[in-house]
Amino acid sequence: MYRSRLGKNLDKRTLDYVSSISDDSEILQYDIVGSQAHTIMLYENKILNRAEAKKILYALDRLKKEKLDTGSAEDIHELIESQLIKKIGADVGGKMHTARSRNDQVALDIRMKIRDDINTICTCILDLISTLLTQAAKHKTTAMPLYTHLQQAQIGTFSHYLLSYVDVLFRDFERLSAAYGRVNLSPLGAGPAGGTSLPINRNSTAKLLGFSGIVENSIDATGSRDVVAEYAGSIAILMTNLSRIAEDLIIWSTSEFSFVELSDQFSSPSSVMPQKKNPDILELTRGKSAHAIGNLVAILSNLKGLMSGYGRDLQEIKPPVFSSSKIAIAAPVVLSSMFATLKVNGQKMREAADSGYLSALDIAELLVNEGMPFREAHRIVGSLVQMAHHSKKSLKKLTAGEIGSVAKQVDPNKILKIISSVSAGSSLKNRTSLGSAGFSEQKRMIADRRTKISQYQKILARRTARVSGAIQDLYEKTRVIK
Amino acid sequence: MYRSRLGKNLDKRTLDYVSSISDDSEILQYDIVGSQAHTIMLYENKILNRAEAKKILYALDRLKKEKLDTGSAEDIHELIESQLIKKIGADVGGKMHTARSRNDQVALDIRMKIRDDINTICTCILDLISTLLTQAAKHKTTAMPLYTHLQQAQIGTFSHYLLSYVDVLFRDFERLSAAYGRVNLSPLGAGPAGGTSLPINRNSTAKLLGFSGIVENSIDATGSRDVVAEYAGSIAILMTNLSRIAEDLIIWSTSEFSFVELSDQFSSPSSVMPQKKNPDILELTRGKSAHAIGNLVAILSNLKGLMSGYGRDLQEIKPPVFSSSKIAIAAPVVLSSMFATLKVNGQKMREAADSGYLSALDIAELLVNEGMPFREAHRIVGSLVQMAHHSKKSLKKLTAGEIGSVAKQVDPNKILKIISSVSAGSSLKNRTSLGSAGFSEQKRMIADRRTKISQYQKILARRTARVSGAIQDLYEKTRVIK
Amino acid sequence: MYRSRLGKNLDKRTLDYVSSISDDSEILQYDIVGSQAHTIMLYENKILNRAEAKKILYALDRLKKEKLDTGSAEDIHELIESQLIKKIGADVGGKMHTARSRNDQVALDIRMKIRDDINTICTCILDLISTLLTQAAKHKTTAMPLYTHLQQAQIGTFSHYLLSYVDVLFRDFERLSAAYGRVNLSPLGAGPAGGTSLPINRNSTAKLLGFSGIVENSIDATGSRDVVAEYAGSIAILMTNLSRIAEDLIIWSTSEFSFVELSDQFSSPSSVMPQKKNPDILELTRGKSAHAIGNLVAILSNLKGLMSGYGRDLQEIKPPVFSSSKIAIAAPVVLSSMFATLKVNGQKMREAADSGYLSALDIAELLVNEGMPFREAHRIVGSLVQMAHHSKKSLKKLTAGEIGSVAKQVDPNKILKIISSVSAGSSLKNRTSLGSAGFSEQKRMIADRRTKISQYQKILARRTARVSGAIQDLYEKTRVIK
Amino acid sequence: MYRSRLGKNLDKRTLDYVSSISDDSEILQYDIVGSQAHTIMLYENKILNRAEAKKILYALDRLKKEKLDTGSAEDIHELIESQLIKKIGADVGGKMHTARSRNDQVALDIRMKIRDDINTICTCILDLISTLLTQAAKHKTTAMPLYTHLQQAQIGTFSHYLLSYVDVLFRDFERLSAAYGRVNLSPLGAGPAGGTSLPINRNSTAKLLGFSGIVENSIDATGSRDVVAEYAGSIAILMTNLSRIAEDLIIWSTSEFSFVELSDQFSSPSSVMPQKKNPDILELTRGKSAHAIGNLVAILSNLKGLMSGYGRDLQEIKPPVFSSSKIAIAAPVVLSSMFATLKVNGQKMREAADSGYLSALDIAELLVNEGMPFREAHRIVGSLVQMAHHSKKSLKKLTAGEIGSVAKQVDPNKILKIISSVSAGSSLKNRTSLGSAGFSEQKRMIADRRTKISQYQKILARRTARVSGAIQDLYEKTRVIK
Repeated sequence: MYRSRLGKNLDKRTLDYVSSISDDSEILQYDIVGSQAHTIMLYENKILNRAEAKKILYALDRLKKEKLDTGSAEDIHELIESQLIKKIGADVGGKMHTARSRNDQVALDIRMKIRDDINTICTCILDLISTLLTQAAKHKTTAMPLYTHLQQAQIGTFSHYLLSYVDVLFRDFERLSAAYGRVNLSPLGAGPAGGTSLPINRNSTAKLLGFSGIVENSIDATGSRDVVAEYAGSIAILMTNLSRIAEDLIIWSTSEFSFVELSDQFSSPSSVMPQKKNPDILELTRGKSAHAIGNLVAILSNLKGLMSGYGRDLQEIKPPVFSSSKIAIAAPVVLSSMFATLKVNGQKMREAADSGYLSALDIAELLVNEGMPFREAHRIVGSLVQMAHHSKKSLKKLTAGEIGSVAKQVDPNKILKIISSVSAGSSLKNRTSLGSAGFSEQKRMIADRRTKISQYQKILARRTARVSGAIQDLYEKTRVIK
Repeated sequence: MYRSRLGKNLDKRTLDYVSSISDDSEILQYDIVGSQAHTIMLYENKILNRAEAKKILYALDRLKKEKLDTGSAEDIHELIESQLIKKIGADVGGKMHTARSRNDQVALDIRMKIRDDINTICTCILDLISTLLTQAAKHKTTAMPLYTHLQQAQIGTFSHYLLSYVDVLFRDFERLSAAYGRVNLSPLGAGPAGGTSLPINRNSTAKLLGFSGIVENSIDATGSRDVVAEYAGSIAILMTNLSRIAEDLIIWSTSEFSFVELSDQFSSPSSVMPQKKNPDILELTRGKSAHAIGNLVAILSNLKGLMSGYGRDLQEIKPPVFSSSKIAIAAPVVLSSMFATLKVNGQKMREAADSGYLSALDIAELLVNEGMPFREAHRIVGSLVQMAHHSKKSLKKLTAGEIGSVAKQVDPNKILKIISSVSAGSSLKNRTSLGSAGFSEQKRMIADRRTKISQYQKILARRTARVSGAIQDLYEKTRVIK
Repeated sequence: MYRSRLGKNLDKRTLDYVSSISDDSEILQYDIVGSQAHTIMLYENKILNRAEAKKILYALDRLKKEKLDTGSAEDIHELIESQLIKKIGADVGGKMHTARSRNDQVALDIRMKIRDDINTICTCILDLISTLLTQAAKHKTTAMPLYTHLQQAQIGTFSHYLLSYVDVLFRDFERLSAAYGRVNLSPLGAGPAGGTSLPINRNSTAKLLGFSGIVENSIDATGSRDVVAEYAGSIAILMTNLSRIAEDLIIWSTSEFSFVELSDQFSSPSSVMPQKKNPDILELTRGKSAHAIGNLVAILSNLKGLMSGYGRDLQEIKPPVFSSSKIAIAAPVVLSSMFATLKVNGQKMREAADSGYLSALDIAELLVNEGMPFREAHRIVGSLVQMAHHSKKSLKKLTAGEIGSVAKQVDPNKILKIISSVSAGSSLKNRTSLGSAGFSEQKRMIADRRTKISQYQKILARRTARVSGAIQDLYEKTRVIK
Repeated sequence: MYRSRLGKNLDKRTLDYVSSISDDSEILQYDIVGSQAHTIMLYENKILNRAEAKKILYALDRLKKEKLDTGSAEDIHELIESQLIKKIGADVGGKMHTARSRNDQVALDIRMKIRDDINTICTCILDLISTLLTQAAKHKTTAMPLYTHLQQAQIGTFSHYLLSYVDVLFRDFERLSAAYGRVNLSPLGAGPAGGTSLPINRNSTAKLLGFSGIVENSIDATGSRDVVAEYAGSIAILMTNLSRIAEDLIIWSTSEFSFVELSDQFSSPSSVMPQKKNPDILELTRGKSAHAIGNLVAILSNLKGLMSGYGRDLQEIKPPVFSSSKIAIAAPVVLSSMFATLKVNGQKMREAADSGYLSALDIAELLVNEGMPFREAHRIVGSLVQMAHHSKKSLKKLTAGEIGSVAKQVDPNKILKIISSVSAGSSLKNRTSLGSAGFSEQKRMIADRRTKISQYQKILARRTARVSGAIQDLYEKTRVIK
């Protein structure tokens, strides 16, 4: 349709190469709504008369409900305009594209889609946090080892892990919300690169579409995609965080750990090994996080080194960003259901917490309380652990003589007494430092995060309502003009 | 179907999350052919009897032609087995999966697909090389500037650029061929992880499917994807190479350079600027190369840190590798057509070659011939260029006095004579070093690459014939047993 | 020093492999300051007595000024503690590490470093913006073509490009500032994974070090690096933005465009071609942006799939993040100096703006003003451009007859009149849409951004002062205790 | 030194930005050797006389042994030339750079370095394979579970894992060797972009430096870096493979698995938890693999979209490729020592192999042997496992009645008999399929790989000798001329 200056049509294979039509289904509805807002603005600024506006708006409304035959269209914008012209003729239909370019139009569509996607993802994140808090409340006294280097490190609580997930996810929410502020601006009216001489009102279309403002500079509005990269980056980070949660659970659900068991509806069988119960959704979460990283790279290395202003390279940014959206919406939902139905084997966790030498740091700190320099306490307890490990017994089974052989300047019986006084329960009762894994902090943090989540829910509800309210008003206007 | 041990079905949303069925359309045909080979092998080794083999083979043949309803299948393997059982009952249909697992099966399908894709891409690369050689032959005396840092550097020929593309693409062909050697091995019969106690013959299925051997170790065969990463890496490099070619042409087709003009059927118009003729396919080639880099990252960061053996994470490798295949098949085809129809503006190129100070190095080398140290020649000519640039004239317009002011130890008239003797034509005639941009080397290299391409075409034809021959034989066997 | 439990020392090669000592020079000073704050807190909470605190603080102060022999230390934390013990003995020196782990310590050091780096980068960004605004003010009426697809698109102004850079950079500032909020929290006191039973005060160390709060959950505080990824992501985006600016200038400084000329002190010569003047710093900016993308990938694919809590993998995050900091500090500084000394060839820009068919959209919009549907105006002007292009003349040279042959329903003379009325100046005067390239918008936007930059400078100054004030107070306290 | 045309020097900060001098220490020696070869060729082709060649060669020899003051040099090439001129004057020293450019020179240096690095890495890979084979020979009957999805899958042997590593590493060797073939070609003599008019002999320098040929096309020779990307890609794949090995061992060395224990000299302690023994070198291997992926991305996204020919962006490829070399040389060495000293807990492995339901597939296959369709056998054994799991007993403890409730058409006693006949030993004896985990295959494969490694060692030795022989000859020539 736009090929007036060019003599020949694209050959078939080239059309496939350049066409974005299959990806564009993701932005079809946004494109139509954007065109409706543009039409109303053109009418309100007397660039279209009422009859023209009415005809266009009505035809766009019908297109919304139709299944479009993509034919040889290169993209969704051309397709809609040509369908419109088919319906109402070139005399009126040919006016819709006044003071607008595909460059500002596609920038608009992407922003509208990402805006909605951010709100959806944020909802899913808060749902997951909510499930995690419910589980944490159930397990705030469930003792288990805390791991560093995948080795048992300190005694802790299962809720402490869950709360660490909660805090990470709050940051993901915040990052996406910060990106939202930069996404929720309208590029419409920027034209192809340098604006227009026609008397449009950019703030008006922005308001009609529920944006909080405009991307002012027209080169910036049409050619920049840094906010898309920021969004894809936030998702890559979110997925990386979820991938770490998945890793914990994959390890804890091995037969060897047996700390947790996924419910059957979140497990997969083997096609040949009848005994298998595989944590496939967790592995896929890891795999999808790799996908999200790849998507981010596709976007960043696309943008790197492009000249300013729109270039067709930017079209290739759509598939990765749409893919990342899809991943980031699904993952928290699935993980939330998985956590809600997770069987937690508190007994196994407790056994692991009691065995081994997990209380070593607690013992060393009790020695510090007795005035011993920490580094010396560390040395002594380290030697005792080595001794116990070699003779395959627990610390509590060491004799005063054995203890005396490494702790020359202290009364070995004192150490013996300290060792025997320590248990998972006593450690977690004494562990009171802010944010620690101890019992009291679990309780406090759960209550605190419950308050936080309800605040975040309100912020999100308000943000979402502002967009949906504007779109609702736009429909009303459409009906009134018609 | 495989959920005997697991009590409940996956919930709907989880099924969507874990399902690979939409990506699996790419490997459907390979999966069926692989199952046919497996069935014949089971029959030949008496694990199935003739009647059973016949039934299974016949049903698989029918499935090939049907449009399958994916229903609630998690993947293509489950879908095909369940469809088979529906057709011929569990008594016989339930035997097809004997001595096989989805783990070796999906590894097989991916290798069969990549094997075909490599041959297709190699064909397309040779076609593109062939087009480039044809154009090079036309332009072996078309003088133009060679650029470094996007600044005019030395006088050269258009064919020299085209031949540099040819040589890069030959390496891409070689890299893909090297990967082919590692891909073209059968993992079938490795079972889920550790092989089988049933008397299968792995070499037999490998031969039936046209592989040159097997991936022996069963953990390796089912769990490794390094050859997939290698393939995706070869494509990322190929696309990066094509992206650089695209960049050259994008710059040369600006109004400011005007060295080349894309034919209309490979250009795109603007939706608003009637005068525009955009090199969209070149920009998309750049964009798709970013996509190919992202796909590689998705694969590598997926694999990184996985335990050995099959994990469901590996499923997420399929979409990026299929995407890379698609990109790498299309790009050389489109670029080949584009080059075949490219208008080359030899006059503009020549004007650029003649203007400026492009002959500076040639002049310096002539001074070296006179015995001057190169560094001194470089300094003198550099100063002359600066002088000429400041007084906005060409080197040939410099006076003996001006020359004398910077070249104290030489006769300025000698330099003057050298300067006036130099032209684009003389430079390119004198430039005879191996692989240089001079006229004689262009001729020699074109002839040489023509020989090379025909050798490569033969290698490729032989490789392709071996696979298609085996598949043909397999069909014959299928018919005979039936 | 910590190897009490382990019998043998690391072999030499392994030590090299695990050691981070060479990267740790970047965080040495932060580590010492952090230890001072920790010591003061231990003293204030009666875990150390005054004499002990005094000794440790004094020794740390001396270490700050010494060149440390890294010897066989695995990392900076071990090195400093062992040096301290060497100086003041194990009795007192061995107490510094009380209630602290390398895990919370290294998390602290990284956050202190990134915090400072963000403030430095933000300062450099504002300096660059300031230079761009100064240049924009000089060139707000310098007409030039705006490019899309690297093809001339619309008439615009040089300042419009510069202002588009300004707006992008403001977003980079905002992104880094948002990351700052998540970085500027203290992890100290989280211990190795689960906190401590000793009566520490985490808020106190946080305040002493100028943090705005703490990272509460101890697993999160020690094991998460999402804020590091966010920081590295913000830099990758910043560098990608700078890379696009570099690309514009590289193209504009070709002989073929000749729009700008880099001053000599920002250009590089050729070692052999005396005439060359290469825009190396711009190319390096592109190259460094690729490096920043690679650094981000190194971080994200490191984190992906790690279990929760500290793992040694996290050590490998330091080199890429330090590298990204270095890049992001240098690039805006160099670009700012380059822009400040850039020679702008307004005449060349104007010539390009006047030649070609750049006014096509302006003409089409004037036809729209006459009531013609935009799509029809687009078609007519497109055909006229094609006609003019084929007969190698400008639009103004078309005859009424020629015009009439493509515009059947309009008076060709009317079109002729419109065409001849259009000039670069008239277009830029009429282009008044918000954020457009027209004259009036340039003036308005420059004034507006000047206000904005001074606001941002204030925010940054306040943020920086808060940190340096706290560190100053800490030094005072150190002196008082001593 | 080269700035004849440019008026001013780079300012200090800009010099830091553009300078590659700190990275260039990696190629210093190669640059000097390359210059010696170039000088000999210039002499042999009468471009230099004997006295000149002698002076230059002698001075270069001295430079090799000196510690160079980098001063304000932008790069190593400029530094060496200027030092040479300082030593022997511009009259002679100024001739060394005749018929050469920094563009072909740096391409040469990188190829020489990568060539050596590939040979070193290949040596380290073969050493690691050798260690793995030694361990495999020790553990070819050590039964343990094979894992898929990190869940116990089939009974296998420890050697089977080790052999899977061996086979993966052979492919890494092959990939690097394939890259070697494309790297081991000389770009010298290509000049800046288009060759030279001086009568050089490119094949002669190639031979002097031990290359197997030249990179012919001069644009290709100076501007392409696809072989560098290929090399970095091979390393990223190698490291990803090593990372998976590291993951296996990290999991197996948890207290919960306790299959292996790293010897003390390959473990790291905790700074606070005295009982810890952390597998840091394995975690760092994972972390360094992320680094290698990041390096690859830095290279690919650097190259993507560059114009043909040399651009300064290419300088930024050096740091990531040097970093990747360093990683890839160290990792196999450290892992080899780690494997050589690894304590394998065969008893723990056997316990895990005997517990659980690992024999399920073996039982199902025995049912298949009795004529039951595999899918039915899979269903029955799956139900038996579920039943046993719920009543917390082993399969062998199931009663005929229980078995009969799920296996209606078979004699339950027959199944009972089959179940009780199965043990880890019987399974591994019966598992004879090619490449399976069974005993006989372990023995065969170890012998086979021993043959393979000695072949590869010969290939590598020959390749290495060819280079070192040529360099030796070059030194001889240098001495003769002198």
